[in-house]
Amino acid sequence: MASPLKVGIAGLGTVGASVVRLISEQRQALALRCGRPVEVVAVSARSRGKDRGIDMRKLRWVADPLKLATDPGIDAFVELIGGEGNPARAAVTAALKAGKPVVTANKALLARHGIELATLAEKRGVALNFEAAAAGAIPIVKTLREGLAGNSVQRVYGILNGTCNYMLTRMEREKLSFEECLKEAQRLGYAEADPSFDIEGHDTAQKLAILASLTFGVRVDPGAIYVEGITSITTADLEAADQLGYRIKLLGVAVKTEQGIEQRVHPTFVPKDSAIAQVMGVTNAVTVDAEGIAPITLVGPGAGGMATASAVVADIADIARGVRAAPFGRPQGKLIVSKKAPMQRHEGGYYIRMLAVDKPGTAATIAKRLAQHNISMESIVQRHSGPPAGGAEKASGPVPVILITYATTEDAVRKALAAVQRDRVISGRPQLIRIEKN
Amino acid sequence: MASPLKVGIAGLGTVGASVVRLISEQRQALALRCGRPVEVVAVSARSRGKDRGIDMRKLRWVADPLKLATDPGIDAFVELIGGEGNPARAAVTAALKAGKPVVTANKALLARHGIELATLAEKRGVALNFEAAAAGAIPIVKTLREGLAGNSVQRVYGILNGTCNYMLTRMEREKLSFEECLKEAQRLGYAEADPSFDIEGHDTAQKLAILASLTFGVRVDPGAIYVEGITSITTADLEAADQLGYRIKLLGVAVKTEQGIEQRVHPTFVPKDSAIAQVMGVTNAVTVDAEGIAPITLVGPGAGGMATASAVVADIADIARGVRAAPFGRPQGKLIVSKKAPMQRHEGGYYIRMLAVDKPGTAATIAKRLAQHNISMESIVQRHSGPPAGGAEKASGPVPVILITYATTEDAVRKALAAVQRDRVISGRPQLIRIEKN
Repeated sequence: MASPLKVGIAGLGTVGASVVRLISEQRQALALRCGRPVEVVAVSARSRGKDRGIDMRKLRWVADPLKLATDPGIDAFVELIGGEGNPARAAVTAALKAGKPVVTANKALLARHGIELATLAEKRGVALNFEAAAAGAIPIVKTLREGLAGNSVQRVYGILNGTCNYMLTRMEREKLSFEECLKEAQRLGYAEADPSFDIEGHDTAQKLAILASLTFGVRVDPGAIYVEGITSITTADLEAADQLGYRIKLLGVAVKTEQGIEQRVHPTFVPKDSAIAQVMGVTNAVTVDAEGIAPITLVGPGAGGMATASAVVADIADIARGVRAAPFGRPQGKLIVSKKAPMQRHEGGYYIRMLAVDKPGTAATIAKRLAQHNISMESIVQRHSGPPAGGAEKASGPVPVILITYATTEDAVRKALAAVQRDRVISGRPQLIRIEKN
Repeated sequence: MASPLKVGIAGLGTVGASVVRLISEQRQALALRCGRPVEVVAVSARSRGKDRGIDMRKLRWVADPLKLATDPGIDAFVELIGGEGNPARAAVTAALKAGKPVVTANKALLARHGIELATLAEKRGVALNFEAAAAGAIPIVKTLREGLAGNSVQRVYGILNGTCNYMLTRMEREKLSFEECLKEAQRLGYAEADPSFDIEGHDTAQKLAILASLTFGVRVDPGAIYVEGITSITTADLEAADQLGYRIKLLGVAVKTEQGIEQRVHPTFVPKDSAIAQVMGVTNAVTVDAEGIAPITLVGPGAGGMATASAVVADIADIARGVRAAPFGRPQGKLIVSKKAPMQRHEGGYYIRMLAVDKPGTAATIAKRLAQHNISMESIVQRHSGPPAGGAEKASGPVPVILITYATTEDAVRKALAAVQRDRVISGRPQLIRIEKN
């Protein structure tokens, strides 16, 4: 059998320790699958003495991750430090420059410096693998990079953040408010103390940037993505969605349009019978729409030590087997620059919830404004809080008006709603959620 | 750019024609992804003159597929003839012997002669790719062969036959009988004139044999699989499943047990909230349970010209990129022989539906027999056709008794039911459907 692949791992948190354990447990199977053994020979982490539940005796300790990255005793470098800056960036750069293949789970690093690192990997002819950086254990990077190589993909979209999906699931099932749910999620460890990176959509955007690049050959650029989080979602929206045959999911969507590749992250109405709508709790999922065939959906765990580690080990196995693909699926020089999607030109259906002043003619005013902007309504529901007391319609508190539009442009919807607000027939700001058809 | 990969295709049915079209349409993207162009240069099929909607002028015609397989003008051979025998088998064998990588969508050929062909491919150091042979466009072969290389998989199961799932879906939704539904499926082209290969589970078994080999390293052998089709499923079963929180799916299941790898195909109760239960119509799906992580499920089109062609083109792209994996994930000599799963030792929950003689003590008799075989009941429902007329319980026609057991062995269930039959408290044979927990 060929000589073993000697691996160095920088970063021994939950994921790093799981990688060490998995490679040791799967030693035999990995050797069979790769045609050569895979061995972790050296590690680097912040504190040496910490008990990680793994046998450290056989692992050479290298205090400085940058030293480990270029260590002549390793054949491949695994970066599990995290963060877009140093030492992660410097270590990955050093490893690639030294001609060592790299595996990383670091979405922030790839989203920010992916092109630069891919260029380096290409120049040195080594692999830069990052299956774990988007959707955890789901083999979506490999699927987009290699598995659907022959397809013309029109759209890729997914649930890429477990925290948000967990919260939306509990809000829907238990009719909890966003704030209550967030507290619960924090208490149970499903949300960070500072949850803004997750709930405001930025985590999803980083992962989407990677998937969009693999799918459409655009340069990774989270700055090109329109981002909207889930903080404005209320139980009223979730109930309305349910009644209308939808669920609300925070989606990352990248889609081919006449204006180029539109990339966006926002709460989305998805039809209840779609595969993506079935995905509950912390689970992730990605759907790929390719020309001429029914959608392909991959569902699985998006985070967690073992889930992430399993993707990392698959990446290492590819290196052991000598497989090397262009990091983003095509030569770096052939990646195209994607401009930020002009959301005004986004086309699709919309869910709109407003609090209408309860007086005669309100519905007619709203309908007129929509018609003036060529927006067709699929449905409109106006809910009075109770039956009018005296038989005749009379002014009382504001009542919710919920409507679903047929496909239109964001620009038209925004303008129509601005007009409705100027008409003073609604109170407060309307809620607007985009609909994604399957 | 490197020299093009020259491809020869034998078999120009719907799939073959779609492959030619896809490669031509995706020429640029494929070249970028593979680092070299991919070109179909020669074809072979039964009738030369037939209009296939593709431009045949640039394609060299080779009447004999065996000649094409060893044609010095091609770098890779694509077999889309079908069938386990010749000319498909002879052509693939000839190509591999000539040192040419092969792509095939032929599950029957692989199920029957997979080991022999894999051995040849290994000997000559060339690829034998067959993504399209199981679950169509779903990249499950690649996922099992490469994507989950680091995982210890405990179980793989899936909906692998679109005809059966289409029929079960319509039976459930429209309360159609099996016979009505089959006629409808035949009329619409979702079932063959002779549907037995599909509805009796043999198509699923061939695909399962391939997936089990990739997952567990057992030698491909449909003969090692317990096979039961869907012909005994009634609307009564589907309704009972619905009320009990399940759906009925024809699953192919391969699972690691203490007795070795158990491989089985049978109608199955799956929990309604499982990803697999959401899969309706002709769609296929495969779930992989790996140690320590939540299940991963891949959902997508399992058949159809374009879906199959897309998997074939992905396989061709891997060859163009120079990727070669052991056909069944590990060296052929390391594949283990799997004995036929002894179903008596199968462990799991069961759904049992019987027609009980409507007289006092029947439920007690059934309960006693189950208890004698150490079977615990999760639920038992006895349905009288109407309220007893005179207030007192009295003998009338048989009434359905539906019960769900906790995990037990097939042996115990069979023996308990035989005893119940000997007690003459039920009429006809009991219906027995295995439950697969997620």
